[in-house]
Amino acid sequence: MRKIIILTFISLFFSACEYKIEQKNDKQTTINDENSTKSNFGIVLHGGAGTILKENMSDSLEAAYKEVLEKAIITGHKILENGGTSLEAIAETIKIMEDSPLFNAGKGAVFTHHETNELDASVMVGNTKDAGAVSGVTHVKNPIELAIKVMTNSPHVMLSGAGAEQFASEQGIEMVDPSYFYTENRFKSLQRIKDSEKTQLDHNAKSAFTDPLIKDSKFGTVGAAALDKHGNLAAGTSTGGMTNKKWNRIGDAPIIGAGTYANNATCAVSSTGWGEFFIRAVVAHDISALMEYKGLSLKEAAREVIQKKVPSLGGDGGVIAIDKDGNMVAEFNTAGMYRASMNAQGELTIGIYKE
Amino acid sequence: MRKIIILTFISLFFSACEYKIEQKNDKQTTINDENSTKSNFGIVLHGGAGTILKENMSDSLEAAYKEVLEKAIITGHKILENGGTSLEAIAETIKIMEDSPLFNAGKGAVFTHHETNELDASVMVGNTKDAGAVSGVTHVKNPIELAIKVMTNSPHVMLSGAGAEQFASEQGIEMVDPSYFYTENRFKSLQRIKDSEKTQLDHNAKSAFTDPLIKDSKFGTVGAAALDKHGNLAAGTSTGGMTNKKWNRIGDAPIIGAGTYANNATCAVSSTGWGEFFIRAVVAHDISALMEYKGLSLKEAAREVIQKKVPSLGGDGGVIAIDKDGNMVAEFNTAGMYRASMNAQGELTIGIYKE
Repeated sequence: MRKIIILTFISLFFSACEYKIEQKNDKQTTINDENSTKSNFGIVLHGGAGTILKENMSDSLEAAYKEVLEKAIITGHKILENGGTSLEAIAETIKIMEDSPLFNAGKGAVFTHHETNELDASVMVGNTKDAGAVSGVTHVKNPIELAIKVMTNSPHVMLSGAGAEQFASEQGIEMVDPSYFYTENRFKSLQRIKDSEKTQLDHNAKSAFTDPLIKDSKFGTVGAAALDKHGNLAAGTSTGGMTNKKWNRIGDAPIIGAGTYANNATCAVSSTGWGEFFIRAVVAHDISALMEYKGLSLKEAAREVIQKKVPSLGGDGGVIAIDKDGNMVAEFNTAGMYRASMNAQGELTIGIYKE
Repeated sequence: MRKIIILTFISLFFSACEYKIEQKNDKQTTINDENSTKSNFGIVLHGGAGTILKENMSDSLEAAYKEVLEKAIITGHKILENGGTSLEAIAETIKIMEDSPLFNAGKGAVFTHHETNELDASVMVGNTKDAGAVSGVTHVKNPIELAIKVMTNSPHVMLSGAGAEQFASEQGIEMVDPSYFYTENRFKSLQRIKDSEKTQLDHNAKSAFTDPLIKDSKFGTVGAAALDKHGNLAAGTSTGGMTNKKWNRIGDAPIIGAGTYANNATCAVSSTGWGEFFIRAVVAHDISALMEYKGLSLKEAAREVIQKKVPSLGGDGGVIAIDKDGNMVAEFNTAGMYRASMNAQGELTIGIYKE
């Protein structure tokens, strides 16, 4: 396995805070015995964007992150290589990150103001534009699995709270006690934020969000986007949302068009960042629309939305995306974004910082 | 008041299932004592789309619908005429429909499978692209008011369920006992649908949605979009969702980009229809994107999305929208859509059927 790994440190090859794997523009198709398949496929993932700085990271923690990112991307890639669907690939890739305590999704979900963990996820496939999403679930081990069940086994696109959990039970989805989501680091983060709120002179809710500590607490969504050998795109996103969130807040992760979007005519996108701004900018669909209606490349479209549109509203974060030709991007306007990708040639990149 | 009313029966003037009020393309601006204002303004509303047929409607019921539509549009128009904002106008217009038992929003909300009423709403303004949304509230008399409070008084865009209601209480929003939302007709509809489910041989959830009775139970959202004298657009949507909905289903109405979108560069849109398809087609944002990136007119963009894109997925419904120049459309692919509009010249149209 390790032989095929090339740890590409992005600064060596790409400028600014954007990296991209330009696939060889190989539009030849190969015909196998059963189906017409394309030689081009690929998968790209993120594990959240934010104030991720080298100076705040120990070598061992960095290695731990890279190990999970590598395992997640290789798992998805193997599915694609073996002729599996983009949906299967992103599901297994995302589940590995959900099962890790390092990312704000599944096991590692952040705590709400009420010291609970409320999880959101969504998924979309590019051929039929089918989609599924869940918000505010508290007992579902892998919310991305439930989002897929909503897509495939219900007449709805989006379910929430207790109703979504009832559907999960009916579908035989693995349920866990809420204590499964307890991690000491996340719980401490909540306490630090609550303490900082208490000491703030200005208790206005909006100004609290300009506090760097609280601001950064919003990051850590995971997501993946893939193109399979059948030419189908899929994207998915999973998150614990924002530390200290109140009032059953819903962010962009479960919102089709904002957190997740896939369309075989254009691209598949998963977002991570300050969800409120990503909802207002309809980030994932806007990237697709810029490609479809204005003729931008995936790289140009992602840059336009993440470097111009979202910041013009005051927001930050990033996206990973793959287009119908297998070109992949990871575009972000924050200090860092956990990310990895692997193309049809088996070339792997893993990145953390803006390099 | 009645002197200014022109009951324009659409078939006399416009073809197919689309009507539009072409404002005189008056781009002159008048300067008043305090502010630069534009002479062009307008407001357009819908009260839901669906299998609304003349032969199923009594004269008295038709008159009752038209009375509320007229009152709602004139209320919003007066606010605009007096220099009020598009947000104020759509809020008061929508509240009149929420307070009527005739529409599936507020007082007239449909029943869920569990015989409760779960209300959703959203709002967006085109100058700042600020937005607010709520889903699954059960005690809020006017969900559109709560969506506005989420936008103006919270750091979030979307709140849900019990948390949204706690925020509502903190904000002094009018709360009512859930029995307020009981209406005999809506309760009977639920019972009819439940009975039909029991008699269906195929209990597959997806096929249940092809039953015409159930299919039609999804309609009845209300919404409005306006352009004010300051050149600012706003749109809002409010609904009780789908009769017999389960699992805390969330439709398109509270989803920014699907049910509601506003952007001063393009248009303001409110959707009504089969929410699952409107989410997957990102209807409201797609109309804006077709205008912004492809140069389509509002009419062309709305037609493309409602007559081609949504049906290609298998969905139905409609939108009302107004562009930055005051052009208004009501586009739908169903038998009818309750709708009304009023332009800067005080010309009123009211429509129900595809005529």
